Amino acid sequence: MPTKKPSAAVIARAKKIRVLLCDADGTLTDGRVWLLSMPDGTAQEIKGFNAHDGAGMTMARAVGLRTGVITGRDSAAMARRAREMGMEFVYQKRAEKIPVLEEILRIAAVTDAEVAYIGDDMPDIPVMKRAGLAIAVANAAPEVKRVAHYITSRAGGAGGVREAIELILKAQGKWLEAIAKAKA
Amino acid sequence: MPTKKPSAAVIARAKKIRVLLCDADGTLTDGRVWLLSMPDGTAQEIKGFNAHDGAGMTMARAVGLRTGVITGRDSAAMARRAREMGMEFVYQKRAEKIPVLEEILRIAAVTDAEVAYIGDDMPDIPVMKRAGLAIAVANAAPEVKRVAHYITSRAGGAGGVREAIELILKAQGKWLEAIAKAKA
Amino acid sequence: MPTKKPSAAVIARAKKIRVLLCDADGTLTDGRVWLLSMPDGTAQEIKGFNAHDGAGMTMARAVGLRTGVITGRDSAAMARRAREMGMEFVYQKRAEKIPVLEEILRIAAVTDAEVAYIGDDMPDIPVMKRAGLAIAVANAAPEVKRVAHYITSRAGGAGGVREAIELILKAQGKWLEAIAKAKA
Amino acid sequence: MPTKKPSAAVIARAKKIRVLLCDADGTLTDGRVWLLSMPDGTAQEIKGFNAHDGAGMTMARAVGLRTGVITGRDSAAMARRAREMGMEFVYQKRAEKIPVLEEILRIAAVTDAEVAYIGDDMPDIPVMKRAGLAIAVANAAPEVKRVAHYITSRAGGAGGVREAIELILKAQGKWLEAIAKAKA
Repeated sequence: MPTKKPSAAVIARAKKIRVLLCDADGTLTDGRVWLLSMPDGTAQEIKGFNAHDGAGMTMARAVGLRTGVITGRDSAAMARRAREMGMEFVYQKRAEKIPVLEEILRIAAVTDAEVAYIGDDMPDIPVMKRAGLAIAVANAAPEVKRVAHYITSRAGGAGGVREAIELILKAQGKWLEAIAKAKA
Repeated sequence: MPTKKPSAAVIARAKKIRVLLCDADGTLTDGRVWLLSMPDGTAQEIKGFNAHDGAGMTMARAVGLRTGVITGRDSAAMARRAREMGMEFVYQKRAEKIPVLEEILRIAAVTDAEVAYIGDDMPDIPVMKRAGLAIAVANAAPEVKRVAHYITSRAGGAGGVREAIELILKAQGKWLEAIAKAKA
Repeated sequence: MPTKKPSAAVIARAKKIRVLLCDADGTLTDGRVWLLSMPDGTAQEIKGFNAHDGAGMTMARAVGLRTGVITGRDSAAMARRAREMGMEFVYQKRAEKIPVLEEILRIAAVTDAEVAYIGDDMPDIPVMKRAGLAIAVANAAPEVKRVAHYITSRAGGAGGVREAIELILKAQGKWLEAIAKAKA
Repeated sequence: MPTKKPSAAVIARAKKIRVLLCDADGTLTDGRVWLLSMPDGTAQEIKGFNAHDGAGMTMARAVGLRTGVITGRDSAAMARRAREMGMEFVYQKRAEKIPVLEEILRIAAVTDAEVAYIGDDMPDIPVMKRAGLAIAVANAAPEVKRVAHYITSRAGGAGGVREAIELILKAQGKWLEAIAKAKA
């Protein structure tokens, strides 16, 4: 059952996580899809990520979690940001997310229970139903919140992902180690 | 009369809708007009759309609604976004919106009563006075809200359009079908 | 004395206005200065204007007010937006605003009492002290609010300028005419 | 101990400041990391600075403070903005901030007690622990707020830096002089 404070059940789920996956638009961003008109009549995409989320992803990585993103859109912005955050799994232009989840499970040799997934809209629901820890950001659609084990108090692009990462690292007793590495 | 919860009258209007049209700036965006200075002294336009609105437009389309945008401005950003959302009717640089409405009525072979229009500022009023369902986003000018049958609780660019789409699809009993398609 | 509701004194001031001038950053925008890194190591400026402000400026112009902007920065974005809004007076890269005001007074053949100025920060104060109607946007520095005759309830970039324009046009009995022209 | 109103202890610390340093993302910006997809598959960074912060930095400089930025990222946007604000110390792509602090102490010939530092996330903590006046913006991580002498009421990118500058200049009795110069 979704709740703002992590329940014992959520903490138990968080302890098992080895792979942290998330959606892009609305989750790593606030859901704005920015397009820049180019002189040649095409339009280029701009994405607004969050520095705290990024630092959180780097911290998660530093203490051993494997991280990734699965998104229906495709942009160089997302690719660069994924690299900056040290993400191992970067799947863009994937409207259907379950086949990607299965590929990641195989590559990482983990089970559903060891995967956390953070999302905000309909296409995230199938993955969230399978993930050991399903997290909805504060701005998620009601249908998404209903299938989440935990709902962040911050929205996508405003620290929701950082909050999810803190929850997991604290449950695993790795938060202080992560801070120490981030300060270095 | 405008109201936050859809009244029986609004639901009755929503049931008849076959074509969903909207304004761009202030409706599909939050009303910010972003301009990027270019090295050659010109400026290019950036628009900030909303992922939830876009998913909603795609869902509306998936269950049979015909969709479109009528705007006084002109940008490659709007053109690309309209394509991404599967919009059939894309009219840019049209200060006067009534002639466009009439062209769409002809092409789509529908009546005023079968058209919903979502807007936020003065140039939207004439179309809203004719549309079977006139919706103002939360950030609309008072004069626009006065002619609306329904005012969304969310602003343009922040999910107002998604809210309008949900209202229509739920009234038509197509929401669950739309979700099912969006999850696929 | 500044007040949220226009007092009789403010309305009396507004009636005399023939020229409406404003600052750019923090007034026509929310005060964010956006810079895009370019591949050649330079950076280009992006400005976020407001559609409602722009429509308001166009409406003011349509009913006979002369409009303009005075700013310390310089960008193609501001130049294009000023053109779009039909502004007659466009002075960029002018750290000192009084000489510009005097040039405008001469060109427009008006007196201080016939000029309204909308601003938000220190460099606006000297002009505001001379303008017949000095308006501070909601996000203005305290020192600026102190010299304003009126403080808008909306911030710069969020409709503060539109609010100021409505105040003036309503005081002059031109608001309905302006709406009628905007709907056409 | 952090507090919203400057305590006598904070004012005493502020009086000694001769060098004002800050972080970039989350401090001079709201923490959004914006990336624009380029046609060649790379992505360029956009940063959103605050006009009031910039004016504040210029005012600080005008009354004799030496200013600078230390950031882990690297962008032409930050470089241009630092120039616009008249910053003397600009260190980008520096994950570790202590060596930079020591270089600045040497160049400026000041002690820890004469340095103020404004930050928001983990990598800022080591510098904040040494700075004579450590300031956290409102959006700072809890761990950062804990080591701050003062926490601004405004967030990064929303005037937090301006608030810090005002605090220092007022403590030093230089605020009125700074305003006078800003109005010129």
